[in-house]
Amino acid sequence: MEERVISQAVISRLPRYFRYLGELKDQGVERISSQDLSKLMKVTASQIRQDFNNFGGFGQQGYGYNVEYLYAEIAKILGLNQSHHLVLIGCGNLGQALVNYLNFERRGFVFCGLFDQNPDLWGMKIRDLEVKPMEQLEEFVRGNNIDIAVLTIPKDSAVKVAEVLVSAGIKAIWNFAHVDLNVPASIPVENVHLTDSVLKLSYKLKSMNDKDA
Amino acid sequence: MEERVISQAVISRLPRYFRYLGELKDQGVERISSQDLSKLMKVTASQIRQDFNNFGGFGQQGYGYNVEYLYAEIAKILGLNQSHHLVLIGCGNLGQALVNYLNFERRGFVFCGLFDQNPDLWGMKIRDLEVKPMEQLEEFVRGNNIDIAVLTIPKDSAVKVAEVLVSAGIKAIWNFAHVDLNVPASIPVENVHLTDSVLKLSYKLKSMNDKDA
Repeated sequence: MEERVISQAVISRLPRYFRYLGELKDQGVERISSQDLSKLMKVTASQIRQDFNNFGGFGQQGYGYNVEYLYAEIAKILGLNQSHHLVLIGCGNLGQALVNYLNFERRGFVFCGLFDQNPDLWGMKIRDLEVKPMEQLEEFVRGNNIDIAVLTIPKDSAVKVAEVLVSAGIKAIWNFAHVDLNVPASIPVENVHLTDSVLKLSYKLKSMNDKDA
Repeated sequence: MEERVISQAVISRLPRYFRYLGELKDQGVERISSQDLSKLMKVTASQIRQDFNNFGGFGQQGYGYNVEYLYAEIAKILGLNQSHHLVLIGCGNLGQALVNYLNFERRGFVFCGLFDQNPDLWGMKIRDLEVKPMEQLEEFVRGNNIDIAVLTIPKDSAVKVAEVLVSAGIKAIWNFAHVDLNVPASIPVENVHLTDSVLKLSYKLKSMNDKDA
């Protein structure tokens, strides 16, 4: 496949395609036209074709897409043909929710180490993994081929912890702390800012009310 | 202020402006130029001016923005000059994390009712609120002026629960279930799809590796 720059918008849509194709696959659907996929996903068929053209097309006009093939191809594009090793930093409710969410492991995101600064949590087990002191984080990341660090800690400590992770050779950060991290551009960061999300909802709700008024 | 349609992209950026301005305000900063805000937030000054022009400008060229005024104005635009009443549906780790996150309440997002289908959780208290059976959800939403429902339940039950909420008159849904809800367009939904988020990170990580290879 020729190399090309894929837009952020296309990338953001890939996981959703992957989700719908996974469900179709589970339902035993073998082929689907861009029209039917369009109705199901509530995006235009032309958008779907354009998105897929970024990756060489995948299908035949008028014949539809092979669901299993398309699912496997998108999995490869998303880097899911290999598993990832994760560390969790911050073992509160949110961190525990992530470790307990089995869907991640099914997709190859495997938690290998859990860390917290609170001594009361050290030794506590979440799915057979023991919570370790933060002091062991750097060595653990270095020694265990860790790809992704998941930050579920308050914003005040997140920036500093990110620095430790970078110096330990982390490859990517999934950041739930409500702060923008300052890491080299070669280390991708995906932010989940829950406050930003609920503020967006509040804005939309207000817009609806303004319309009604 | 004249009414105009604000793009999704601008709306997505508002919470981030709000966050930075809140931090500046906490630090006692009184005025900031679009250039300085630009450096801090790592977006162009022209983007900032364009974004703010959607709401009538806010500032004076060459004189900078009044931080407190701008913060208060964006709060109003985001609908934060009034409080919101929330119900939580699904009291597992993720739901508990949200209820325990005090920042939401500080912004006026107040949890009023907690619901779960698991009888083992009924009567359990999270921050002084008792978990109630799902059977009481509809009446509770009707009777307590609830604006926002937070769905932290598996995708299989989310679609059905959303229908109940709609018929009970819910005004907005913050959806953590890994499924697209089918609700009337007048009810805004904000999705937090954690799996989609980690897949995006995986894609970015793979792209980095491909570049290095």
